[in-house]
Amino acid sequence: MSRGRGGPSRGLGGEQVEGRRAVRELLAAGRRPVRDVWLAEGSDPSPILAEVEDLARAARVPLRRVARGRLAAEASSEAPQGVLAHAEPLPEADVDELLRPRPGTAPPFVLALDGVTDPQNLGALVRSAEAAGVTGVLLPRHRAVHVTPTVAKAAAGAVEHVPMAIVAGLPAALAAAGRAGLWVVGLDAGGPTSLFDLTLATEPVVVVLGAEGSGLGRLVRERCDVVARIPSAGRLGSLNVAGAGVLALFEVARHRPAD
Amino acid sequence: MSRGRGGPSRGLGGEQVEGRRAVRELLAAGRRPVRDVWLAEGSDPSPILAEVEDLARAARVPLRRVARGRLAAEASSEAPQGVLAHAEPLPEADVDELLRPRPGTAPPFVLALDGVTDPQNLGALVRSAEAAGVTGVLLPRHRAVHVTPTVAKAAAGAVEHVPMAIVAGLPAALAAAGRAGLWVVGLDAGGPTSLFDLTLATEPVVVVLGAEGSGLGRLVRERCDVVARIPSAGRLGSLNVAGAGVLALFEVARHRPAD
Repeated sequence: MSRGRGGPSRGLGGEQVEGRRAVRELLAAGRRPVRDVWLAEGSDPSPILAEVEDLARAARVPLRRVARGRLAAEASSEAPQGVLAHAEPLPEADVDELLRPRPGTAPPFVLALDGVTDPQNLGALVRSAEAAGVTGVLLPRHRAVHVTPTVAKAAAGAVEHVPMAIVAGLPAALAAAGRAGLWVVGLDAGGPTSLFDLTLATEPVVVVLGAEGSGLGRLVRERCDVVARIPSAGRLGSLNVAGAGVLALFEVARHRPAD
Repeated sequence: MSRGRGGPSRGLGGEQVEGRRAVRELLAAGRRPVRDVWLAEGSDPSPILAEVEDLARAARVPLRRVARGRLAAEASSEAPQGVLAHAEPLPEADVDELLRPRPGTAPPFVLALDGVTDPQNLGALVRSAEAAGVTGVLLPRHRAVHVTPTVAKAAAGAVEHVPMAIVAGLPAALAAAGRAGLWVVGLDAGGPTSLFDLTLATEPVVVVLGAEGSGLGRLVRERCDVVARIPSAGRLGSLNVAGAGVLALFEVARHRPAD
């Protein structure tokens, strides 16, 4: 492992995975080499921990039993649930690949994140993306969180299944998406169109979410074909980016054919 | 304040509020007496902090400037953003009131939570409920999180606006909801009906969400008129309870008339 945990790597990250579901999916997906799995001594038996052990043995991944305090000291998420793993970083997908339609598969359905900095939100968004059938996620290289242990845990294993690409600049990537025939749908509290009034069909689409608080950046907004808002019935009427995101992703998903 | 923070109160809680939006809404809503507002010395000026100061002065709430470390020591949420307040507990709504239609207002639209224990999830759900136009939230008295500072912060002030009631037993409360004419819609990964296939109109409704991981309890499920699932396109296809909840609440909301 040339890149230690917490290092300034600007790749996708993911070298340390914490939590039961996240570690199980790391092993079950088998997309990247796993160096070792740590289990806290004295954990109550559970089907998912047994599954983690079985998967690790089958893949000849070393299992280390460590004291609970040792595991907690190694962990960086809040509640690692008695299990963590070290692995090769998540492979980066190629952005052009993510934007290209492939015969015989569903058209591209991409989630682009404009500077999401909260790890819980990024994790929840990747989990929602996986459930909605997103075919790829675009993350900016800078001013954004990548896959920390907290992100992987909040994503409950979805980071192992959803291809993710890192882009130097999101406006340029959205321009490329437009040229590739994707419909670029931004989401912003001040958007002129209701999300629920969009005429969505089965065209390729990229959903763009802004940073917590500040929303879509100006250059990103200019690359959107439409900017939609979540219609609100409340006095505050604001959602966090993970809540707005899951609504937008499933609004697209329900109009797409099952794969 | 007879009930200190962190005490074993089984009321709604809410006596300590942290974070800029949460404290601003506490003061703006004016639903409950505020004892004091603490501001960290040396915070960068911001419109929302200025608003907090103005609202506190207008309501004659004492403002205390404290060292950042002192505020952090008092805070129990992760990032209090340099501001916290002490207030009377949130008022508990009466469950029968929440279930009763009122002439001239939208029909009851209630969110019932069957043992949500993660404060981030509860906060996000109350925030989503406010945005979706929910008229009341039902929380069980036991085996559930109430309004801790982390909940209030994640709700971004929505706890000040959405009436919340505590019930001794959720199955009995759902039976009462049924007798009051509400349609009881449970959400569960194993539900037989897709959320998006429900025929929703403007009838009074209660949406029931289960605990993280375990889903709806058996007795709660038996009180549901329908149990719906979020249709998934992924391999894992699971959402966290906050994600599933916002989808269900807005699915109801989009079929209701604007108030």
